Amino acid sequence: MTANTALREADDPRSLQVRFSEDQPLQMDSGALLAPLTIAYQTYGTLNADKSNAVLICHALTGDQHVANIHPVTGKPGWWAAMVGPGRPIDTDRYFVICSNVVGGCMGSTGPASVNPATGKPYGLEMPVVTIRDMVRAQAMLIDHLGIDTLFCVAGGSMGGMQVLQWAASYPERVFSALPVATAARHSAQNIAFHEVGRQAVMADPDWRGGAYAEFGVRPVKGLAVARMAAHITYLSEGALQRKFGRKLQDRDSRTFSFDADFQIENYLRHQGSSFVDRFDANSYLYVTRACDYFDLSADYDGKLAHAFQNAVKTRFCVVSFNSDWLYTTAEARAIVHALNAATAPVSFVEIASDKGHDAFLLDEPDFMSTTRGFLEAAAKARGLRERAP
Amino acid sequence: MTANTALREADDPRSLQVRFSEDQPLQMDSGALLAPLTIAYQTYGTLNADKSNAVLICHALTGDQHVANIHPVTGKPGWWAAMVGPGRPIDTDRYFVICSNVVGGCMGSTGPASVNPATGKPYGLEMPVVTIRDMVRAQAMLIDHLGIDTLFCVAGGSMGGMQVLQWAASYPERVFSALPVATAARHSAQNIAFHEVGRQAVMADPDWRGGAYAEFGVRPVKGLAVARMAAHITYLSEGALQRKFGRKLQDRDSRTFSFDADFQIENYLRHQGSSFVDRFDANSYLYVTRACDYFDLSADYDGKLAHAFQNAVKTRFCVVSFNSDWLYTTAEARAIVHALNAATAPVSFVEIASDKGHDAFLLDEPDFMSTTRGFLEAAAKARGLRERAP
Repeated sequence: MTANTALREADDPRSLQVRFSEDQPLQMDSGALLAPLTIAYQTYGTLNADKSNAVLICHALTGDQHVANIHPVTGKPGWWAAMVGPGRPIDTDRYFVICSNVVGGCMGSTGPASVNPATGKPYGLEMPVVTIRDMVRAQAMLIDHLGIDTLFCVAGGSMGGMQVLQWAASYPERVFSALPVATAARHSAQNIAFHEVGRQAVMADPDWRGGAYAEFGVRPVKGLAVARMAAHITYLSEGALQRKFGRKLQDRDSRTFSFDADFQIENYLRHQGSSFVDRFDANSYLYVTRACDYFDLSADYDGKLAHAFQNAVKTRFCVVSFNSDWLYTTAEARAIVHALNAATAPVSFVEIASDKGHDAFLLDEPDFMSTTRGFLEAAAKARGLRERAP
Repeated sequence: MTANTALREADDPRSLQVRFSEDQPLQMDSGALLAPLTIAYQTYGTLNADKSNAVLICHALTGDQHVANIHPVTGKPGWWAAMVGPGRPIDTDRYFVICSNVVGGCMGSTGPASVNPATGKPYGLEMPVVTIRDMVRAQAMLIDHLGIDTLFCVAGGSMGGMQVLQWAASYPERVFSALPVATAARHSAQNIAFHEVGRQAVMADPDWRGGAYAEFGVRPVKGLAVARMAAHITYLSEGALQRKFGRKLQDRDSRTFSFDADFQIENYLRHQGSSFVDRFDANSYLYVTRACDYFDLSADYDGKLAHAFQNAVKTRFCVVSFNSDWLYTTAEARAIVHALNAATAPVSFVEIASDKGHDAFLLDEPDFMSTTRGFLEAAAKARGLRERAP
């Protein structure tokens, strides 16, 4: 798997693509108009006749549209294969599942690694800064393009959960049910701090070249690897790290008294960093982290989160958190639930017991799987969906 | 304040120094013999006639010997000025306070920025890897040099607390009382992970030059700044960050839709990174983080922490933690207390309520100040010390 393979996906993805014309720009929060806009996406299952069984999945920071198929760059299973597929909680025998790469990403939707048609070169930092609302606006354009009026469910974890919340705020009438997982309605100071460290690590790499690295045929792989390593620590709980690695040594009997990766945790982190750079674009990392940091849903509603959901009173919500998640804590989930309660929106709240930290939302956690299955089955009944898509 | 000013301290510090001769090498855990060994130190107050009022303070990762005087590089007050001084809890009218720069540091004790007499160039990575026990052995050599048999107290926080625990294990008969603060008896997987990110950030900087940057007249300031930023997040509690910074913008009314430091927390972190590199040596950062990571006091005692303290039954301990410290948690402090209990050593345990995270041990926290004052006054009475040093 080479870096070139990864970067080719930015402009020539092995996914479905919709290319909106110049007269259909993406209106961005920054005031910029992005055109032409391309959205790359995957679908699973079959859309039913009345187009009432569509589930939109929103991916997390460094995720992509490859939810439940083999990833074209890494060759690994899709990032939510435990959750999505035939007979899975998000059952592709019953639901039509859509996932698109976010605007600002690097897997075929317009982002900083895409060629800017105005210059013939990758956008780099000429790409306007993207917000979570921009991502959701682009998804709505895709959903329009697919001729779908109302989504049966919008689901996602982490940055994906932010998009779910934004969907409920921006297009409440189009969201029958919403499943925001392991997420928050605004990025905290600590959240911003970790992202800023990552951005500074990328920008400190001389091969970043002010974002124009592609023009020089280089990539800031060392800086991006450091960014990923720092972020990765936040995805795992202290307990999971201790249980999995503790102070175990890597393929040796004693300390080497050097700066080698003596400890398994060091080796693991280095691997996380080096494998990440093979599949992800450094500028995209800047853009998606910035989108999260800018996210504060209440800010568009006079600082009152409940007001964001004032028109979502018919949307059925299930808010999920994990008790060992210290990146987006249960306290953040409760703040969302309180706002939904205040807005009189129907909401269930489930805190899943898991020691796996933020990463738990990506794993085959039985309680999370059964919660999702139960929530969707009840919603499907309310929606009048058949047991299987025709 | 220039980088040159900072680096000059490594070989020509504005501190007292003791230079041990070639025939008095430091015997290191790696097997290396370090000679000649230089220890830079500061003292405050007056040693009494029977040399029974000496307090050894052990500094933390990036601290130094400048406990309670104006720092020669930064021009700021000493790092523990709230705790140490006339009338302070560690009262220099009563106690003779000693603090030495750790071996591996960059403020005058032998470390990677010191000139290797064998080559005439800075050691760089030719410096043997240092352990906490090595640091303590060097301190014991200094204490011998000063003609002090028994220390009235050994006190320190964070990495300084590790040295306190090592003193009690290695030289129990020389430690009348011990005050380990905000520390742990072994580095956890998460602790190691954060340090490894910092080291990788330094090593990713092309100006690191395999550790030989001094020979090239450059310094890996960008990498070291990123390392400091990542570490700094771990020193603060999530609550303190939220209260102090939240999502407040830096000198602007709205988001810039750029990668500028829009948020105060971003600006603060960048400042922490850039000011750190003016006073600290990048290779020293590698060495002191490695020393912490290698620290597991029980490993030298068949994996049984209580055995480390089996000869410290006459040493009076006060173990202090802070409830919002997520770097070295109260659970880690309890593990130390349990081991001391099992060893039948006299121990008090105080968990201080503070929302300031790990940094609290450096701050003027009233409960921490009064705890320290009370512990030392009781110990002084037991030791038969006068109210004031003669």
